[in-house]
Amino acid sequence: MNDSAFPALHPVVESLGEAARAASRVLAAADTGAKNRALAEAADALASREKAILAANAEDVKEARQARDVGRGADDAFIDRLTLTARTVEDMAAGLTEIAKLPDPVGEVTGLRYRPSGIRVGQMRVPLGVVGIIYESRPDVTADAGGLCLKSGNAVILRGGSEALRSNLAIAACLQAGLKAAGLPEACVQLVGSADRAIVGALLGAERWVDVIVPRGGKGLVERISREARVPVIKHLDGVCHVYLDDGCDADKALAIVENAKTQRYGTCNTMETLLVSREASPRTLPAIGRMFAAKGVEMRADAEARAVLGAAGVAGVLEATPDDWLAEYLAPIIAIRTVAGLDEAMTHIARYGSAHTDAIVTEHHGRAQRFLREVDSASVMVNASTRFADGFEYGLGAEIGISTNKLHARGPVGLEGLTSRKWVVLGDGHVRS
Amino acid sequence: MNDSAFPALHPVVESLGEAARAASRVLAAADTGAKNRALAEAADALASREKAILAANAEDVKEARQARDVGRGADDAFIDRLTLTARTVEDMAAGLTEIAKLPDPVGEVTGLRYRPSGIRVGQMRVPLGVVGIIYESRPDVTADAGGLCLKSGNAVILRGGSEALRSNLAIAACLQAGLKAAGLPEACVQLVGSADRAIVGALLGAERWVDVIVPRGGKGLVERISREARVPVIKHLDGVCHVYLDDGCDADKALAIVENAKTQRYGTCNTMETLLVSREASPRTLPAIGRMFAAKGVEMRADAEARAVLGAAGVAGVLEATPDDWLAEYLAPIIAIRTVAGLDEAMTHIARYGSAHTDAIVTEHHGRAQRFLREVDSASVMVNASTRFADGFEYGLGAEIGISTNKLHARGPVGLEGLTSRKWVVLGDGHVRS
Repeated sequence: MNDSAFPALHPVVESLGEAARAASRVLAAADTGAKNRALAEAADALASREKAILAANAEDVKEARQARDVGRGADDAFIDRLTLTARTVEDMAAGLTEIAKLPDPVGEVTGLRYRPSGIRVGQMRVPLGVVGIIYESRPDVTADAGGLCLKSGNAVILRGGSEALRSNLAIAACLQAGLKAAGLPEACVQLVGSADRAIVGALLGAERWVDVIVPRGGKGLVERISREARVPVIKHLDGVCHVYLDDGCDADKALAIVENAKTQRYGTCNTMETLLVSREASPRTLPAIGRMFAAKGVEMRADAEARAVLGAAGVAGVLEATPDDWLAEYLAPIIAIRTVAGLDEAMTHIARYGSAHTDAIVTEHHGRAQRFLREVDSASVMVNASTRFADGFEYGLGAEIGISTNKLHARGPVGLEGLTSRKWVVLGDGHVRS
Repeated sequence: MNDSAFPALHPVVESLGEAARAASRVLAAADTGAKNRALAEAADALASREKAILAANAEDVKEARQARDVGRGADDAFIDRLTLTARTVEDMAAGLTEIAKLPDPVGEVTGLRYRPSGIRVGQMRVPLGVVGIIYESRPDVTADAGGLCLKSGNAVILRGGSEALRSNLAIAACLQAGLKAAGLPEACVQLVGSADRAIVGALLGAERWVDVIVPRGGKGLVERISREARVPVIKHLDGVCHVYLDDGCDADKALAIVENAKTQRYGTCNTMETLLVSREASPRTLPAIGRMFAAKGVEMRADAEARAVLGAAGVAGVLEATPDDWLAEYLAPIIAIRTVAGLDEAMTHIARYGSAHTDAIVTEHHGRAQRFLREVDSASVMVNASTRFADGFEYGLGAEIGISTNKLHARGPVGLEGLTSRKWVVLGDGHVRS
């Protein structure tokens, strides 16, 4: 906090930042009970203020519809994400209650051991400090992200889409009411109340006040923020996920995993986008898979070998894949299919075209399973399981602030632990270094 | 590795980067024995090529002396850092041998547990991929950093100071000989052989090829790199370290710790720069401390209260501290001294003026020790121990690539573990998400 080292930023960010930094010190030292009480009180406030929240949201939605009707910005999907219902408000409250139940990561000391010098050295898990969340139209992120930051001991500055401002203010007020009731500073959760875009720019450069930025939204938003930020960013970029069907794999497991990985939900980042199949497995597995895709209306784009196998099995209408298909994150009922010689070629394909998000092998072979787990450098690597499992709840994190495609700090689903780091603690009794 | 998403960079960096990425895949999958053999062979090469290394270094030193004599750049301290001796070459070899003995962090699986869905989920420690090291005049960083990256399974691109190029090339060749002898790609360790400064700029933006940059050198270098880098940086900025003497602290421990923290070495980042003393402890501890500093020629800059206590004890020549002193990293025989009411004021001072590097409390009070450990947000927090212990060897890391003042990923001394992260592993038997 060298005063001269930091140029003054946008006055709104200076004021939010200074308040957040001060609040973060109190929150970092707060006991678990106080944080849980704040979460429980915030959940109660969401429930008791449901009508007011829905009324504020209705105004946001009304304005977005007007904008849509005159062709400015908002489309139907946007309005859908913006719209809250009694059910979503209840879900937000339930989410906070769940977060309160999670173990507090802060203060855990690990590895405390004596060193030859006589000191004891270990590591203590601590909050990051101040987290900035920049998100688009979903107002439920306000409760979700606010709750996770609170539990992990971080002050948070929330900057939602301007179209959701009334909704976000109403929800943030519930979190602040919870903090107040628990005797914690309301500035632990602050919402940027202005639509001024210069504020986002200033937040991204506010190294003095903000320790990490988490963008939540479409790829355009994430890329822009990553490009501009001076503050570290926990980000999610592409999810080009693969399933590889290995020599000798079980055809029933292959069908079940491929169906689930591609068709359970088309628009999620952990959905499979490319199916890799070994030459040996292809005739045993592709016909049933192709029929399943055809029945579900999934467009197949395959290499020549796979097209031949599918054609021979009576699966019609398979298109020819181009190299662009290997790079595509369709987020749609389209699947790229490629034949490979075996494990090595599959791993080379994944290293070249993948996005290091989530990749799975279907195999009965122990050695190749181990090689895939070790050598595929993705945030989640799986054996005989659907890529759709790459999710904070499925992994037991209880909740997630997002999925990271970074290689440092936190990879994959990021929960409370990803919002903390570890400092060193040294215990002596007058020890000096010799 | 979306080809279209990455603009082509400087051709040298494209070529180094592509080779490093390919080598990193092989090294990430290499077994521990092969990596240890490479390190042992590299240590042997350093020993057997000692004369050639010293001859190359002599040429570098000769040129630097000529530059100094005509007033271009290099001063005596610079030439001192640049100069290798038989002893430093032996130390480099011994360092590699030590790194070979450290446990391999790669591949460790933690927390593998069954989830209600039936899958097992855990985390596996993996290399970061490609590490870029940018350093100044010390050629021994070449061996040190190269060895740590090798053991942690990362390919490394080394860019040392142009004045040390001949020395660095001779040392890097030993590492490459070690890799070759162990059957690993020589491109696991690459040295930028050109003095072209545009290469550094390109490396800092090479998100496609480089996963993390570690700058090693003065604050100017680190600041410039942090400002310019698009790639994540593990960096060390200021070390404004504090020792706080608490109410009722033991005066003998206080004297021993203060003496060691300030005077063992003046120029290191974990040296104390400001001494905080509680009003109660001041008359009990400052007189002996002041006499010790005076005897060692340490200039004291103190607030009015501390000056009065020191003056009354016959310690002369204590200057008046200004607020700039609270922010100063002297790296010199100068100490700032401030009187505080007690623990809270001390922690407020540290939060305001400190650099979150290393801070210590001297106390016999259990509760205040616990509060200091929990609430001071620094990479290393200590009770009754000298700040000089903040060091990878003292902490048991075996070696360190540097000390991080980042809050994400790795804080404080960074060893092999800081050069890795953890990916998720999921084991199923045909499991799909419901």
